[in-house]
Amino acid sequence: MSYRAPVKDMLFVMKALAGIDHVASLPGYEDAGLDTAAAVLEECAKFNEGVVAPLNWEGDRNPSFFKDGQVTTTPGFKEAFRQFAEGGWQGLQHPADFGGQGLPKLIHAACSEMVNSANMSFALCPLLTDGAIEALLTAGTPEQQATYIPKMIDGSWTGSMNLTEPQAGSDLSAVRTRAEPQPDGSYKIFGTKIYITYGEHDMAENIVHLVLARVVGAPEGVKGISLFICPKFLVNADGSLGARNDVHCVSIEHKLGIKASPTAVLQYGDHGGATGFLVGQENRGLEYMFIMMNAARYGVGVQGIALAERAYQKAVGYARDRVQSRPVDGSLPKAGAILHHPDVRRMLMTMRAHTEGCRAMALVGAAAFDAAHAHPDAEARQQNQAFYEFLVPLIKGLSTEMSLQVASLGVQVHGGMGFIEETGAAQYLRDAKILAIYEGTTAIQANDLVGRKTARDGGAVARAIAGQIEATEGALKARPSAACQAMAKRLGAARRAFEDVVAFVAGQTKASPNAVFAGSVPYLMMAGTTIAGWQMARALMAAEDELASPQADTDTAFLQAKIATARFYGDHILNKVPAERDSIVEGADAVTALALESF
Amino acid sequence: MSYRAPVKDMLFVMKALAGIDHVASLPGYEDAGLDTAAAVLEECAKFNEGVVAPLNWEGDRNPSFFKDGQVTTTPGFKEAFRQFAEGGWQGLQHPADFGGQGLPKLIHAACSEMVNSANMSFALCPLLTDGAIEALLTAGTPEQQATYIPKMIDGSWTGSMNLTEPQAGSDLSAVRTRAEPQPDGSYKIFGTKIYITYGEHDMAENIVHLVLARVVGAPEGVKGISLFICPKFLVNADGSLGARNDVHCVSIEHKLGIKASPTAVLQYGDHGGATGFLVGQENRGLEYMFIMMNAARYGVGVQGIALAERAYQKAVGYARDRVQSRPVDGSLPKAGAILHHPDVRRMLMTMRAHTEGCRAMALVGAAAFDAAHAHPDAEARQQNQAFYEFLVPLIKGLSTEMSLQVASLGVQVHGGMGFIEETGAAQYLRDAKILAIYEGTTAIQANDLVGRKTARDGGAVARAIAGQIEATEGALKARPSAACQAMAKRLGAARRAFEDVVAFVAGQTKASPNAVFAGSVPYLMMAGTTIAGWQMARALMAAEDELASPQADTDTAFLQAKIATARFYGDHILNKVPAERDSIVEGADAVTALALESF
Repeated sequence: MSYRAPVKDMLFVMKALAGIDHVASLPGYEDAGLDTAAAVLEECAKFNEGVVAPLNWEGDRNPSFFKDGQVTTTPGFKEAFRQFAEGGWQGLQHPADFGGQGLPKLIHAACSEMVNSANMSFALCPLLTDGAIEALLTAGTPEQQATYIPKMIDGSWTGSMNLTEPQAGSDLSAVRTRAEPQPDGSYKIFGTKIYITYGEHDMAENIVHLVLARVVGAPEGVKGISLFICPKFLVNADGSLGARNDVHCVSIEHKLGIKASPTAVLQYGDHGGATGFLVGQENRGLEYMFIMMNAARYGVGVQGIALAERAYQKAVGYARDRVQSRPVDGSLPKAGAILHHPDVRRMLMTMRAHTEGCRAMALVGAAAFDAAHAHPDAEARQQNQAFYEFLVPLIKGLSTEMSLQVASLGVQVHGGMGFIEETGAAQYLRDAKILAIYEGTTAIQANDLVGRKTARDGGAVARAIAGQIEATEGALKARPSAACQAMAKRLGAARRAFEDVVAFVAGQTKASPNAVFAGSVPYLMMAGTTIAGWQMARALMAAEDELASPQADTDTAFLQAKIATARFYGDHILNKVPAERDSIVEGADAVTALALESF
Repeated sequence: MSYRAPVKDMLFVMKALAGIDHVASLPGYEDAGLDTAAAVLEECAKFNEGVVAPLNWEGDRNPSFFKDGQVTTTPGFKEAFRQFAEGGWQGLQHPADFGGQGLPKLIHAACSEMVNSANMSFALCPLLTDGAIEALLTAGTPEQQATYIPKMIDGSWTGSMNLTEPQAGSDLSAVRTRAEPQPDGSYKIFGTKIYITYGEHDMAENIVHLVLARVVGAPEGVKGISLFICPKFLVNADGSLGARNDVHCVSIEHKLGIKASPTAVLQYGDHGGATGFLVGQENRGLEYMFIMMNAARYGVGVQGIALAERAYQKAVGYARDRVQSRPVDGSLPKAGAILHHPDVRRMLMTMRAHTEGCRAMALVGAAAFDAAHAHPDAEARQQNQAFYEFLVPLIKGLSTEMSLQVASLGVQVHGGMGFIEETGAAQYLRDAKILAIYEGTTAIQANDLVGRKTARDGGAVARAIAGQIEATEGALKARPSAACQAMAKRLGAARRAFEDVVAFVAGQTKASPNAVFAGSVPYLMMAGTTIAGWQMARALMAAEDELASPQADTDTAFLQAKIATARFYGDHILNKVPAERDSIVEGADAVTALALESF
């Protein structure tokens, strides 16, 4: 089997770190406790391991292709997607009113990790459909919701997000796609959208494109952008499919990775105008899109974790099988599996620790999202929302950047074999590179962290998090184990560095924007590492607690592994945080000293 | 033009850091001063920019292919290789007696960077041929040298290195290829060799395979390995080509990168035995191969620098052209080129600083090699040799690992465009990944650094280097500039961390091998970063000196860029060294704590 879902690890995080018992105490989530999670995750694991994962390599070898306006996906994708929808996976987190399961994000996030580990190119279709559903839930009319959402949940139709244009990538204020109001209340859409994931494919009957466009006469910049539904086939009043809309795929991209996922160039309105329907109010499109993007950014962070997990599993498998050289400590009489070599273990521990750290951060974030939506107390909702929003750029930015490093280490563990495509390790490296780019590059995440998440509130939320971390340090220090003592030292140093940087960012963003933004990505990386490390510290204590009071089902080896991995995170990853503080606070001048013409 | 050779940067390093005047004072290199270097580099730049570089992308799109035992290389490669050899580039560093130019390694290294920047897949053919020439110069008989070397220098024939077998990768003691002595003094060779770069191709009339094999009855392990010449076509007494030898390419690999470079599986002796000729003495093959491998490892380090330079140039070009978003400091009234954005500048500075730091280290190492070979004083030769040998694993390990990071940043600067293969940035990322694997993975380089280069002499050479660095710190501190003061602080902290790690490695390798080898790669990275940073500090002072006493041809902007780049290296790269010390000295337990069965 090429992938085994880490169900036990996920349940450990849900229980010990993310507080699934608390989530299950929230109104609407009463049935979403640990037992439900375990049952859902087991089922999800079975489906993804058995049906989706085997198509991953095939998708790379035999990617989606374009001919005469049509995209044909990899053999097996269409059938797997039907099974995915029939199994209820598309509707997992969506309201029961529209055919969904209404489960919390905490459970959905774990399931999303699995499908992405199994096959990231495949998983992009449901990910984008989730985004379209959320946009309509946020801003669609009841009629729009009733028309489109149930069909997307049952897998008959899928969704796509149409933001980028050739001149408008990170900068959406440059969007030029034009919407002309029609007498019947609809709009005619004209323009070119690029990089549209699953913008054209053969896995569903219809595609619900959500499109950013500018109504004729709207203000310039981001304040003049509106959001439209522009389905591939128009929908009749009875819900059946009507005429083909004037939106056409003119090509798909030839990409470094995620080759099975078609990345379309869509041409709107070349034959008289594509019919679009306004979502919400005119000129508020970017606002709605941001809601959808925040969900998508979180989802891309989970993709990073998913990819890292799969790369780790593959590397471990190779390290167990490949025999080469006698161990340096002479512990074997002859050559042994390379898993015995300290540097291979260092690489695998690095991969494992990064993956577990980001997973813990992401699931803790998901639980905060659930509380932000379902908690009966307004202040608790607000606090959880603020915490979640602070985490989103970290989850997206750190998990994706680390996934690239992890996938590269995965190739490295394979040695020469890793460079041979048939081995499969290289695919993860190629696939990973998109994660730090789409749904906002790491720099765009860092802008969000600096601007909206730190400077805007003067660092209040960041400082509150630092306070929680400090409390964890206190708990660590009170424990006698060497692991806790070491972790207390590393976490304390990281947290103090984080506080220094927050003070710098909060204090200087307005006065010295170049200095702050020169360190924005390092800030994101060090903040994310600190918070992920904090979760690893909590995991360490939880594992110690369970080992101290073992139950009948206590798995000693599993808990000892949690302790060992946390210790590694502290000594090899978290300990790199303080130097980032220096680069950010003392090193900004060095970033901008070189004259532009000297590059 | 897709590549511009950084001639000015190379000459600056040669003059200010590597001491080309001193090299030109060595016997045999009297003509190899700065003027010669400048002339050679200009010519080399013209050839590689004009002829070799345009074939790079074509090689990726239209790679070497295999059919019926034959390999056809990318259109244009054969003709470019002929021009390469005719231009004298293959013989640049080889003795005039065999048709070479007899130039020092210092000049050859710079020329090698250029051809690798221009087209790494292409450059591998001369790189391997250089290795074969050096092996024959080291251990071949005068007849063997006369038969093979002139033909390799004039480009009629090329060379290949045949080490790896399916079960023998990093561990050459597992080589099984068999050599049976024949009555005429030759041997019959039987076995399978894999990963043979340019092991079959159509760019030359003959291929001189140098093959590791075990003479029947030889001792087990590395002490029973001999080196053989096994040409594709046997050579008649008059030097003309004779019968086809029984070595055949059975397939080439489908790889992540360097696709134009054919990576062959070679089958020896399936039709009665391939005729081979012993090089040097029986059972000393690994020793000879190591001489060749050290040269090849240095060469691969240069490939890393070359790739990083090309990726940097491409990213800068894009950052100048791509318009997106208004600068955060409001310095432009509307959206500007992304080169204005601080994070883009941070990425480009990171790429530039890594490239310049490794180039300086590599060229300083090349000058030491030249002194080790040509200095009239035996003690000076020995000291230079020890310094060079210490640097080789750092040049190979650090330059290749950094090239991967630089190539990844290069893609990142391009945003979504970077993920599209036609853009070309992704090719550098795919190509770079092999560099940290072939000619000994980074872990193998680190083993060399720990075992042969540090533990064996109790850290004496390493400490001598630290002493030289400390002297540079003193010189920095004596200068008033903020750049020198900042650099003195960073360099001092790094040097002290380096000394701590050297003491740990020298003291513990025997007693606690697992603990030391758990930190071997981090040791390599931090040692390399410290020494590259030291060279950047020297560059900073040299630039200040020239600015203080300007000559007629002083290029102020160029020198200011040197200062800015050095400052960046200190504040953003060198400052990460001390944390590595902690991971190595305090973190070894965390690497090996996880039970093997818990991975």
